[in-house]
Amino acid sequence: MTQHPSPELESLHRYRPALRFSDIDAMGIVNNAVFFTYFEESRVHFFSELIRNQWDWNSAGVVVARHEISYRHPIKYHSQVEIFTWADRLGGKSLDMAYEVWIADEGRGALLAAEARSTLVAYNHLSGKSCAVPQEWVQPLQAIGLGRPRLPHDAG
Amino acid sequence: MTQHPSPELESLHRYRPALRFSDIDAMGIVNNAVFFTYFEESRVHFFSELIRNQWDWNSAGVVVARHEISYRHPIKYHSQVEIFTWADRLGGKSLDMAYEVWIADEGRGALLAAEARSTLVAYNHLSGKSCAVPQEWVQPLQAIGLGRPRLPHDAG
Amino acid sequence: MTQHPSPELESLHRYRPALRFSDIDAMGIVNNAVFFTYFEESRVHFFSELIRNQWDWNSAGVVVARHEISYRHPIKYHSQVEIFTWADRLGGKSLDMAYEVWIADEGRGALLAAEARSTLVAYNHLSGKSCAVPQEWVQPLQAIGLGRPRLPHDAG
Amino acid sequence: MTQHPSPELESLHRYRPALRFSDIDAMGIVNNAVFFTYFEESRVHFFSELIRNQWDWNSAGVVVARHEISYRHPIKYHSQVEIFTWADRLGGKSLDMAYEVWIADEGRGALLAAEARSTLVAYNHLSGKSCAVPQEWVQPLQAIGLGRPRLPHDAG
Repeated sequence: MTQHPSPELESLHRYRPALRFSDIDAMGIVNNAVFFTYFEESRVHFFSELIRNQWDWNSAGVVVARHEISYRHPIKYHSQVEIFTWADRLGGKSLDMAYEVWIADEGRGALLAAEARSTLVAYNHLSGKSCAVPQEWVQPLQAIGLGRPRLPHDAG
Repeated sequence: MTQHPSPELESLHRYRPALRFSDIDAMGIVNNAVFFTYFEESRVHFFSELIRNQWDWNSAGVVVARHEISYRHPIKYHSQVEIFTWADRLGGKSLDMAYEVWIADEGRGALLAAEARSTLVAYNHLSGKSCAVPQEWVQPLQAIGLGRPRLPHDAG
Repeated sequence: MTQHPSPELESLHRYRPALRFSDIDAMGIVNNAVFFTYFEESRVHFFSELIRNQWDWNSAGVVVARHEISYRHPIKYHSQVEIFTWADRLGGKSLDMAYEVWIADEGRGALLAAEARSTLVAYNHLSGKSCAVPQEWVQPLQAIGLGRPRLPHDAG
Repeated sequence: MTQHPSPELESLHRYRPALRFSDIDAMGIVNNAVFFTYFEESRVHFFSELIRNQWDWNSAGVVVARHEISYRHPIKYHSQVEIFTWADRLGGKSLDMAYEVWIADEGRGALLAAEARSTLVAYNHLSGKSCAVPQEWVQPLQAIGLGRPRLPHDAG
């Protein structure tokens, strides 16, 4: 992944999911499917911060075309979890979002719990067809920059 | 609860939920909230069997106004679960559904896992208002009879 | 419900669930089963604030024996939701929790979305048996008082 | 993906998830995260059929290390869904499962709804460490053969 040219903490999207007891499965950890629910919330927050004015999500929204995730460390119920989300690629009709999930680990810094990536396709729900990524998104996405930002947990 | 006057096995609505690993919480049992998801499926099956012809659920559907449940026995993942559902009361704008959740217990008959009851209000989603219970539902409900039917697990 | 004798805002337990897109069903509202997941989180917060020192939940915890809920108003995705939780009855081996779910309604005060009540039975997970409500819970419960506290949304 | 050398219908693992109303999100389709819950059930069925004798899952089980999924077609509530699951790679300490999700489309054959793949790592829950894939799994996996089997929906 390309590095963000001028990383600024302001451009960093941090989302702290409120873990639920029901997210935990019989193994005592956050179930693998629940990570995608966290990512969904994280994306909702990301886009509502990106596009502050009211947006008619029916005229153009996104559909998920692809996900990939690598699980690095299990998450227990009372963990403090942070999800960092950024746009990693911007195409004509689609964009890629990437995520890192970190667990605060008292006294030992933070642990990477998962890395993931989604391809979203711009979609007009009224016409039922994919469409160009709206210009109203392109500009703020370019303003904050594509690619992995510098994260608080990065060394040095 | 009144007894069904002429209990017939045909009038008995039996639904076997497919338990999911993710229904199980960290205590190793079906989470208490998940029972309501099972009841929802059971109601969907009940009404789709009751009203066999295509029904425009937008013109008149139901909303849940009330639930009550008593948990009698925890349910583990690989249990064979049966939910019996019946209409227990039929009013002008609402009806009550009742449920019993049973676990097959090999060699020892069956265990009652929960008893529950819901009040459903007939609702016109187009007008956004409650409405009379449609005649198309009243007739088949009266035909199968209100009240708890004789269940396979009833003694004698 | 008996009124709390000397209502103090400090004794008020307020929990703001983070609604998830996946809590919303095809009707566009928080699914009826999800309320019980919110109550579960609310109870976890209630008890962890009540019993501040580390508690061995395996030696004595609670199991849900009963729920009842009346739905008053549907909840949409971007609603600001507050759940007020209190202990309404304290018995030898069980206690009742009660809840009110409120939606902030801009410019018009707040709307009651649901009222609910749960019976919890004290349970020793090591012995697999119900047990007396631990004294370590009884004292703080009596200190904050049983019964519905005065809520911010109560009139004058 | 390599082709199964001698495809036999017997070796085909077909799982029909019971869709739930609560699987459907506000877009009216099965939420993207729910596919992973379906895959989890499908794996549980796959392995319980593969290893028919009682297996002590505590001594050796699996943890999910990776998922990837491509969504091809949305799934609506009353769809008839079939998930085909196979082992696609068998390593010393891990294996890859692959899935295809198909929707029966009346009068028009079947539609591919998603293709996915998971890496599972053999894990000893007692020791808390990854371990070799048990021989008791290797033999039946090799017997049914690795790689995509011939599916009913394949042309010709």
